[in-house]
Amino acid sequence: MRGVYDKAQVHAILDEGFVCHIGFVNLIDGQPYVIPTAYARSGEQIYIHGSPASRVMGVASRELDMCLTVTLIDALVLARSSFHTSMNYRSVVVLGKARHVTDLDEKREALRLFTNHVVAGRWEQTKQPTDQELKATSVLSLPIEEVSAKIRTGPPLDDEEDYALPVWGGVVPVIQSFGEPIPDDRVLPGIATPRLTR
Amino acid sequence: MRGVYDKAQVHAILDEGFVCHIGFVNLIDGQPYVIPTAYARSGEQIYIHGSPASRVMGVASRELDMCLTVTLIDALVLARSSFHTSMNYRSVVVLGKARHVTDLDEKREALRLFTNHVVAGRWEQTKQPTDQELKATSVLSLPIEEVSAKIRTGPPLDDEEDYALPVWGGVVPVIQSFGEPIPDDRVLPGIATPRLTR
Repeated sequence: MRGVYDKAQVHAILDEGFVCHIGFVNLIDGQPYVIPTAYARSGEQIYIHGSPASRVMGVASRELDMCLTVTLIDALVLARSSFHTSMNYRSVVVLGKARHVTDLDEKREALRLFTNHVVAGRWEQTKQPTDQELKATSVLSLPIEEVSAKIRTGPPLDDEEDYALPVWGGVVPVIQSFGEPIPDDRVLPGIATPRLTR
Repeated sequence: MRGVYDKAQVHAILDEGFVCHIGFVNLIDGQPYVIPTAYARSGEQIYIHGSPASRVMGVASRELDMCLTVTLIDALVLARSSFHTSMNYRSVVVLGKARHVTDLDEKREALRLFTNHVVAGRWEQTKQPTDQELKATSVLSLPIEEVSAKIRTGPPLDDEEDYALPVWGGVVPVIQSFGEPIPDDRVLPGIATPRLTR
C-alpha cells in the first residue's frame, strides 16, 4: 500500500466513485457520524448532496469540519497466510471545512454535476429543478486541499517460506457493473432505454 | 426511504458488505476521520480491522467514540426530474464506544471471522497467525446497540405531472460481482483455484 498525492490520481478516484462517506461531529455530544451520500467533483472542490447529513445534523452551522472518503474496492488479495490476506483498493480522504451552498445558481450547477456524474448527459434529458426544489436541497462544498489517497495493487506478499504451502495465492477481482435497466410501469411508448457503461 | 430497526435486517446488511467506513475524532484538534476497513459481525458485536485507523490515530486510547457505517448500493433510480433522481441502497449506522481487543485468542477469532466473512472456509485453508502477528494486528470491537438502518427500494417517485414527460424512468441495477481469480506466479502445481460466489 502506498500513499498518493498526485492530483491526477486523486481526481481519477473521485471521478470513478459515485457514493462518498462523509464524517462530521455532533457538536453537542462529540459523537462522530458517517453517512453515505452522492457527490461530484468540480475542479478543485467537491459538491456533496447534504440532505442525508442534514437529517442527522439538524440545523446546520455555516461551516462544518468534515472528512470525505471515497473507496473503490478492486480485488480480494488471498495470501497463503491469513495475516497477509488483504484487499486491493483505491481510496481518497479529503479533510476540510464544508461550506453550505446557498446561491441557487451554484446549487443548480451542483445538481447538474451530481446527475451527470452517475449518468453522463442525464441532466439535459430530465426536468430541471425549480427554485423551490433547489431551496429544499442541501448542498455542501468542500475544497480539495488537504487530501491523501491510498492505493494497493498487485498480488499477495507472503512470507518467503509460506510460498511452499499447498495454498492458492492470488487476487480475485471485485467488479462493479450496471445491470439491464428496469423501466417503471409508466414509461411512455417510444422512449429509448438509457445505455450505461461502466 | 425508510428507517429500519429490525435486528435480522441489520444483521443481513452487515453480513453482506465486506468493507465498512469507520468514523472517529482526533481528540487533539477535533478533526473527524473516515477510514475504510475490513470487519465481521459476531453475534451482537462487530470486530473491526483497526490497523488503517491506528495509523491515523497514533497511540490509541482504550475506548474510542466511533460510528461504523456499511453501505450497499443496489441501483441507480432515474426519475423524470433531476430532483427525484436517487439511488436504491441499504445502509447500517452503528454508534458506540469501540474497545481495543488485547486478548490474543479473541484477536485470533476476529481474524478468523474477517477471513471467512469474505471467502467462506478460507481461514481453515491458510496458515494461521503467530502470536507475534496477532500482537502486531489492531482489532477493535463495537457492540451493536445503538444502530439504525436505512433502505430505499423500488422505482422512482416522480411528481404526477412529470409522468407525461418524454423521459425514461426506472432503475438501473448496480451489481458487485467477483471476476475470475488470478493466481500469482508462485502457486504450486495441483492447487485448486478458489470458487467464490456472490
